[in-house]
Amino acid sequence: MRARKKKWAPSELAENPMIIRNEAGQPINLRSYFNNSAPIHMEIGCGKGRFITESARRNPHINHIAIEREPAILAAAARAGVKAALDAEANAGEAVSLAFLLLDVNELAERLTPGEISRLYINFCDPWPRKKKWAKRRLTHEGFLRIYERLAIPEIHFKTDNRLLFEFSIESLSQAGWRMRNVSLDLHAHMPEDNIVTEYEEKFSVFGPIYRLEASPPSMHTI
Amino acid sequence: MRARKKKWAPSELAENPMIIRNEAGQPINLRSYFNNSAPIHMEIGCGKGRFITESARRNPHINHIAIEREPAILAAAARAGVKAALDAEANAGEAVSLAFLLLDVNELAERLTPGEISRLYINFCDPWPRKKKWAKRRLTHEGFLRIYERLAIPEIHFKTDNRLLFEFSIESLSQAGWRMRNVSLDLHAHMPEDNIVTEYEEKFSVFGPIYRLEASPPSMHTI
Repeated sequence: MRARKKKWAPSELAENPMIIRNEAGQPINLRSYFNNSAPIHMEIGCGKGRFITESARRNPHINHIAIEREPAILAAAARAGVKAALDAEANAGEAVSLAFLLLDVNELAERLTPGEISRLYINFCDPWPRKKKWAKRRLTHEGFLRIYERLAIPEIHFKTDNRLLFEFSIESLSQAGWRMRNVSLDLHAHMPEDNIVTEYEEKFSVFGPIYRLEASPPSMHTI
Repeated sequence: MRARKKKWAPSELAENPMIIRNEAGQPINLRSYFNNSAPIHMEIGCGKGRFITESARRNPHINHIAIEREPAILAAAARAGVKAALDAEANAGEAVSLAFLLLDVNELAERLTPGEISRLYINFCDPWPRKKKWAKRRLTHEGFLRIYERLAIPEIHFKTDNRLLFEFSIESLSQAGWRMRNVSLDLHAHMPEDNIVTEYEEKFSVFGPIYRLEASPPSMHTI
């Protein structure tokens, strides 16, 4: 997503109650931030925040957090998140547990505490196409899979419209010993009730199939 | 493939030099049949035999065998195989190593000798759709994967145009600890030079993508 200049972004970043403030480089303890024992689900890259906000609204007993490295994007998503949460709380009378964190995925391993995240959402990430040397930037590359394992994340939920990225991901997950389930090669052919359509997904699903899978790391299995 | 009545089928089955004759229920030793040390590649279900015959023609240093449970289908494929082999030998001057065997896949484990097959082709097998209780008949069901493992087959090459079967197969292979590579979700988008288009594939590729993958069993890995 392109980050347009937004004049209100700096004050949003400073004041939005859903944004976790943290010293650069310091470890982050999400469990103490949420201050409850409910599972924590994380999205890498939040776009305009529709997915994580809607998921938080539908699942009030799960803590939701999105990380994003672009301050302006994070500011906009958090702004929308606060509004949606207030609406939801006014309508349903139930609190929404949602947070946003300015963080590059490459810092994930050193900043987060292992065992805190119980599900990771990767929605329509950059496919880094064409160049072989870019493969390691793909969020399903074995390097990232190792990071998710180090953080003891028991499952990832992955969606993309990029065929080559999905092919790559099946191979990468498979070669790293991850197990896949609920694989869909055309998610919208029989749209699951619990599918939350992201902004990107809405736009691009007309051009071809949406691919989706869930996967869990080798440490979760007992061959 | 439907088996039409063919009057010449019984004599073809009795006389075709490419058909392996074997007492029902008796073990089959392919290595002694081929009487050489070249790898043996097997196709399950041969249709009209175009795939296995063309693969044998292109790879004269590999032994090829197709198994098929319908006598009339086997007879027609073997008849075409002999003709193609004679043509190829006349043109290229190189012998083609090709055989056909009347065998139900469910007898594979008890009839074949472990360690003989070095590649298994599964091309456009019956997807056994809809009913959950039919899943175990799919050639990528864990029951069959266990048979391939018992026969020490180091790799399978699998093609289908059936999306649901391919989704099922990714999950089944993955859950059984198999590793996948060369996954393609649209084989004909960039047709590999070495792809041999089956009769079925030619007809049905206009209606949607052809899916393909290669997979190897857990015993081939060292994690």
